[in-house]
Parts: sequence; structure tokens; C-alpha cells
Amino acid sequence: MSGSYNVAVAGATGAVGNEMIAVLEQRNFPVKNIKLLASERSVGKKLKFNGEDIKVEVLTKDSFKGIDFALFSAGATRSKEFCPAAAASGAVVIDNSSAFRMDKDIPLVVPEVNPDAAFRHKGIIANPNCSTIQMVVALKPLHDYAKIKRVIVSTFQSVSGAGKKAMEELAEQSKAILSMKEIKKNVFPHQIAFNCIPHIDAFLENGYTKEEMKMVNETTKIMEDDSIKVSATTVRVPVFVGHSECVNVEFARELSPQKAKELLKNFPGIVLVDDVSKFEYPLAINVAGTDPVYVGRVRGDDSVPYGINMWVVADNLRKGAATNAVQIAELFIKN
Amino acid sequence: MSGSYNVAVAGATGAVGNEMIAVLEQRNFPVKNIKLLASERSVGKKLKFNGEDIKVEVLTKDSFKGIDFALFSAGATRSKEFCPAAAASGAVVIDNSSAFRMDKDIPLVVPEVNPDAAFRHKGIIANPNCSTIQMVVALKPLHDYAKIKRVIVSTFQSVSGAGKKAMEELAEQSKAILSMKEIKKNVFPHQIAFNCIPHIDAFLENGYTKEEMKMVNETTKIMEDDSIKVSATTVRVPVFVGHSECVNVEFARELSPQKAKELLKNFPGIVLVDDVSKFEYPLAINVAGTDPVYVGRVRGDDSVPYGINMWVVADNLRKGAATNAVQIAELFIKN
Repeated sequence: MSGSYNVAVAGATGAVGNEMIAVLEQRNFPVKNIKLLASERSVGKKLKFNGEDIKVEVLTKDSFKGIDFALFSAGATRSKEFCPAAAASGAVVIDNSSAFRMDKDIPLVVPEVNPDAAFRHKGIIANPNCSTIQMVVALKPLHDYAKIKRVIVSTFQSVSGAGKKAMEELAEQSKAILSMKEIKKNVFPHQIAFNCIPHIDAFLENGYTKEEMKMVNETTKIMEDDSIKVSATTVRVPVFVGHSECVNVEFARELSPQKAKELLKNFPGIVLVDDVSKFEYPLAINVAGTDPVYVGRVRGDDSVPYGINMWVVADNLRKGAATNAVQIAELFIKN
Repeated sequence: MSGSYNVAVAGATGAVGNEMIAVLEQRNFPVKNIKLLASERSVGKKLKFNGEDIKVEVLTKDSFKGIDFALFSAGATRSKEFCPAAAASGAVVIDNSSAFRMDKDIPLVVPEVNPDAAFRHKGIIANPNCSTIQMVVALKPLHDYAKIKRVIVSTFQSVSGAGKKAMEELAEQSKAILSMKEIKKNVFPHQIAFNCIPHIDAFLENGYTKEEMKMVNETTKIMEDDSIKVSATTVRVPVFVGHSECVNVEFARELSPQKAKELLKNFPGIVLVDDVSKFEYPLAINVAGTDPVYVGRVRGDDSVPYGINMWVVADNLRKGAATNAVQIAELFIKN
């Protein structure tokens, strides 16, 4: 490998870890050496990177000597245990778990939205939750122009957000139902095939789920504006890859749908797909495997003085996780 | 048959027509004779009613002599053509199409919400759109207590709302994808299997779909309060039967989540399913084949002074269509 940076991927065998490896390749990240780390269970497995077989090694606190960038997607418990050690070894740690996101000393970064925050890191940078990332990318250009007062969001989240076993569960349950057989439930608390479950992550005292409160709290941190009010309902739907979101936004100042479309279209990282005369709007099945955030169905909401409704779709494993993490690392290469 | 009323079902062979027959049976509607009407294509078919084989007859303007109640679910074009003739014959016509819903001289009725309107009919009573019916039932007790200012709704609508062929398309596309074959598209403009499509009914000049504007306009008519603002995004999801809705409501007066739950629980036609400690909330797969509107995930929304979020689920073919129509007819029996 001809690059200048030693990169480690912790949680390399998971759904997001696999995408991190693919995204590093596809974006030609200047990798010198890559280290693929996972739990003992996966040690000995081989994964391809740029045509080479790379052996998966066990994740330990000593895994990070000489590593420039450590990308973590191994769950919050492992992040809490190993990210500080990786940072102490001198790596810039980019952590995809929820472990450090709301820690006020740790930047929470979406490169299109708050790149400067990344440079205030003390070793660890947090990668936001998938459902938050795609929403804030779509909100940012509109907020800069007309100042957001309030956001009401309902999500349509694919099963891949719950990992590889969740994707298998959707396939297996769907097959069972189509052939009139009994279904098995392991990953989700209820049947997910041909059903919608209004429940992602654990429930909190206030009746919301952790996933919903992530959208509330991470949004104000990333947008660096505590005055933005967010109310969220997060729903799991029987889709393999790609999260869709109905986003209703109330602004402090006038913003026509035409102007909103222009702002969205010209913002980095957004693809506007919005021609209803041709039935064109973003669809989960079309965005899977790609990096941008797609926005469509942009229209005015007359129920408030200045309101917009829009439909925001992205690949939750890519822009919602792996791509955003690699983009954070890229900030340090450019500078 | 031992009842006192002659009933006609127009569109008897469709998804909703089938349910109308089932609901008349299951609710022991006092039917003397039943007439099953459809287009020429279906003439000669037989359908069961209370164990008897009933021949399907062709729908004509002369079909309604002696009929007391004519339940229509044959599409807006046929309703416009045949409902006036049925009413002229002396039948009380209950029409499930969009043909007459916004006509100011024709009542639009949900029996739990505005039963009195039914008695102002001049022959025809309109049955609201499926997605509106379940929402207004959930809104009514809350509105009576705390006055609704604004509603933001996102829907998760099952394919059965688009008829029997749409249900077959979901099954066939799902099978094809699970066995890595090409899919066929006929009913929906895009693949519906393992996908969400933010597009139901035709697009209008303002960027909204007809389905979305039905939720806006029908709600104020049924609630008999033009001050209620509604903003809707309607989405088709890969579910066979049962519509789910994320409903965010802003009130003029204080309403705690606890009080909201109490009001919902005590309102006729609503079943409150809301114990998140046991992962209990309404699910489309559980409500299919039943008549109530199910509400759960009731919680406060702190982004406005008085706000509530809730999750509203009902069988779109039953309460969203057939059951509501039969309940309208029942109003005239009781009185």
C-alpha cells in the first residue's frame, strides 16, 4: 500500500466494519498499512483490502502502536474500554458507538456540518448516530439561511442498523411468512417482516427511546445551536439497507420550497432527487451502497408561518456510519 | 335472513367489499336481504354471506329498488355514476370513495367523532379516507379536552389500501428478491418489497399528494373545526394490512401524557396499547382483522408548550373503510 497513514478498524467483521473497509478502498484513503481488529471469535478470519488478504487480529489495548487513525465500530462497551488506549497510543480515534457522543469534551462531527469541531479533539472524535447524520446534513443549509426553530421527524429505519443478524432475520421471517410457516424472533422483539415496529434501542423514563433522544440531543450538539427543538419518533421498517426520514421543519424566517431546493442542491454531500412529475424522490433501495444524503418531496408547510416538509434518505451503513467516519479522518489529511 | 334491512354492497368483490360483507356478518347487522354488486367482469361469481351463497350481480342504476342501505366501494368514477341513482331509489348511500367527501352538502362521518352529521344527509353519506379515519378517532378525545392547534402526521400505509393486486405484488416482489430474481412492477411505480415509497395517490400542484391533502381537508371537516392545522406525509410501506401513523399534536391548553392516555382509554373505539416496559405498542400485524383504533407510544413533546406524540394503528380495510361504513349504517338502526 502506497499511502502515508496506518489505519486500524476495530469491529472489522461487523456490518459497519465491513463498510469502513470498503469506503477506505473506494475513496482511495492513503493507507500505508491496515490493521483489522475484532473480538477473539473472529481472529484468524481474513478480509480483503485492495486485493490483499488481511488477517483479523484480536482487539487489545496494545493494538494501536504506530496507528494514525483508529476507526471503531465495535459497540459502546468495547469503545469505552479500548478507545482511550488507542488515543493514548497517539491515534486519532473515530468512534462510531454512542459511548462518547454527548461527552462535552469530545467533538461529535459531521464533516459537511461542523468540520471545525474535529480539530478540537483530545484523541477521540465521536461519529453521530445514523439517523442523526443524514438529518443534520439536510438541515444545515436550511438552518444557515432561515434559522430552524423546531423539527418533527419520523424515521423509517432499515434492519441493517441492527447488524448482520437483523438482516438475516428479516430475510428468514419473510421467507417463512410467504410459505405460511412459523417465524423465529431473535434480534427484534416482534416480527419485523411485513410489519413496522415503533421501537429502536432501549426505552427511557420519559417514554422516548434512546434512538429518539439521540436525534434530539446530537442534533443541537452538531449544529452548535441549543435553540433548535427536535421531537422524534423512530420506527424500524422491513427494509434491508437505507434509512428514510419524514422531516418537518419550522423556521424563524421565510424560506420558500424553491429556495430550499436550491440550497439543498448546492450543499456538499446532498443529492436533490425531487421531480414528482416523473415520480422521482429518494428511495432506500436506490441509495444503498452510496455515500450522499438524498433529499426529495421538498414542499412548503402552511400550518406554520415558515415551514418545510422533506423526505431524507441515506445508506445508514455508509453516510450514517462508515463514510462519515472516513470523511472525518479525511479532514486531517487535507489539512 | 331475519333482519329488517335490505343491504346492497357495490364493489363487493374488491378488498374493501369483501370486508364489508364480513363486517356486516360479524357485527350481526340486521340484514333481511343482501345484494352483492360489481362490474360485469365479476357477474356470476358467488360470495358467502352468513353461510349462504350469494350471486354477484351487475351494478346498474336499477340495482337499488327496495334497498335500505347501499354501501359503495367501487371507486370514485362508479360512485359518481351510481350513488345518486341509489339515493334516488330511497337507499341511504354510504360511499367509501373520494367522490363526495369534500362536497359541503354531503356529510363525512366517523361515528365516534361526528355522528350527528350523518343525520343531515340528503341521500349520500361519505366514508372518509382510511388514513384520516384512524387519526381523527385518536384526535377527538384530546381535542375535546385541550383543543388542537396543529397536527404533523407521517403515515406507514400498508399495500392493501391499493387493493388485492397490490397485496399480490408485495408478495411476488418479496419472493423474487429473496430468490435473487427480477421483480415485476404493475401496481406501484417503484419496487415496494423491502422499500418505502413516499407517494400515495396523485401529486398536486402544491407538491403534496391527494392522499396527504385528504388528511388535511377531511380532518377539519370531520372534526368540524377549521382552526385545526394539519401537515401530512403519506408513505407506502411493505406491510400487507394495517396502517400505522406517527402523530405529533400541539394543543392550546395543557395536556399531560397521563391525562392523554386516560382520555384515549375511555373513548369508544380506541384500545390503548401502551406499556413500553413490556414492549407493548400497537403493531400492524396484530391489528389486522379487527375493528378498533389502537394507540400507543403516548408521550409529551417538550418542543412546544403543550405537545403529545403518539403512534396510531388500525386495519385500513376495517375501521379505515368497511367497519366505519357499517357503523354509519348502524347509527340509523339505533335511532
